[in-house]
Amino acid sequence: MVLLSGGMDSATTLAIARSRGHPVVTLSVQYGQRHQRELRSARALSRHFGAREALEVVVPLGKISPSALTTPGARVPKDRRSLSRAASTIPSTYVPARNTILLGLALAVAETRRAEAIYLGVNAVDYSGYPDCRPAFLSAFGRLARLATARGVEGRGSPTIEAPLLHRTKTEIVRWGERLRVPWKLTWSCYEGGRRPCGHCDSCRLREKGFREAGVADPLVDPPKRARR
Amino acid sequence: MVLLSGGMDSATTLAIARSRGHPVVTLSVQYGQRHQRELRSARALSRHFGAREALEVVVPLGKISPSALTTPGARVPKDRRSLSRAASTIPSTYVPARNTILLGLALAVAETRRAEAIYLGVNAVDYSGYPDCRPAFLSAFGRLARLATARGVEGRGSPTIEAPLLHRTKTEIVRWGERLRVPWKLTWSCYEGGRRPCGHCDSCRLREKGFREAGVADPLVDPPKRARR
Repeated sequence: MVLLSGGMDSATTLAIARSRGHPVVTLSVQYGQRHQRELRSARALSRHFGAREALEVVVPLGKISPSALTTPGARVPKDRRSLSRAASTIPSTYVPARNTILLGLALAVAETRRAEAIYLGVNAVDYSGYPDCRPAFLSAFGRLARLATARGVEGRGSPTIEAPLLHRTKTEIVRWGERLRVPWKLTWSCYEGGRRPCGHCDSCRLREKGFREAGVADPLVDPPKRARR
Repeated sequence: MVLLSGGMDSATTLAIARSRGHPVVTLSVQYGQRHQRELRSARALSRHFGAREALEVVVPLGKISPSALTTPGARVPKDRRSLSRAASTIPSTYVPARNTILLGLALAVAETRRAEAIYLGVNAVDYSGYPDCRPAFLSAFGRLARLATARGVEGRGSPTIEAPLLHRTKTEIVRWGERLRVPWKLTWSCYEGGRRPCGHCDSCRLREKGFREAGVADPLVDPPKRARR
């Protein structure tokens, strides 16, 4: 069971789950992101990696807990001075309790499919200051999962929480994805949903840094690679 | 912040939160229940108790994790031999990871409203064998909440999880609700959504037992009380 947003981290996480020989089910949650571009990427990646099921569910979080990522017209921060400084404060793109809700939904899917593991692409190194991307949060969710499910109660185990990218830099993620032949052109990272990435939001800048430092061309923005297509 | 299904337990929980002097926000989640009757009850109860906001969100869980409660046409168990025997197995009305998801959504609301507490009407005595209605589950969620939120990270505390009915029998719940003048006629407990409760599902039978043992007339089913309206 892989939580798949359609971004480069969850795409790499899906590739890792497949490389370990697991058959996979993907779950993409539309929680009121401001665009559908990510979901199109998630569908394409699920097809590419041969997911048994590609589940989608709409949860309109913006209605109950507004955030810059879920509110039409809200401003997404651009060109913040420093991305490492960014990690010390919680930005307006923080979606309250997002990973708790996403993992809850993943747990429901894992329970009905008897999945052994829930994979997700969270990252605690080059992250944007979100509290629910930290290792302690994931451990606590793993403990909760054992108590929350019929399988846990009946002694048949509960899914483990697998976050293989947790301690990797974006550069290491690009290198790992390259080895697993992740089709980067199918992924989408930008907080905006235009035809091309904006290049200025936190997500675009982390992606750009990762590709640059790994010495890999990003097919979404790199002109030479675009010309070859 | 009160999770309000519209049943007698969550109605009593809302009355308890109000009696403690809290201003309240209610959240009702339509997770693909087979009827809208409960949601109508939730709206009426929110009005009755003067909730500052009565939030509603639709999360189509039946699409990703089928259960007898969320699948059209699935059979809800009727007249099971014994309700205490029922508690030793997990029935088909169990909605996988339901309370994890509901509490995740409640946490999002609590975070944006800076709520001090999340109240929910779960009950571990006369329950129907659901794993996520147990005290250990709620403690684990409380720990998770401290790690999952911006407030927790920034040292401004996180909402406590309040389940005042956890160790109460249905009979005690009816008595407590009576003292707080819960308008039982606005509540709805039946798993089916007809004009009158079916009287045969687990939920109807637990409710009937509670009212009978408390010596209180249930306005939804009791003919003398109905005649007086």
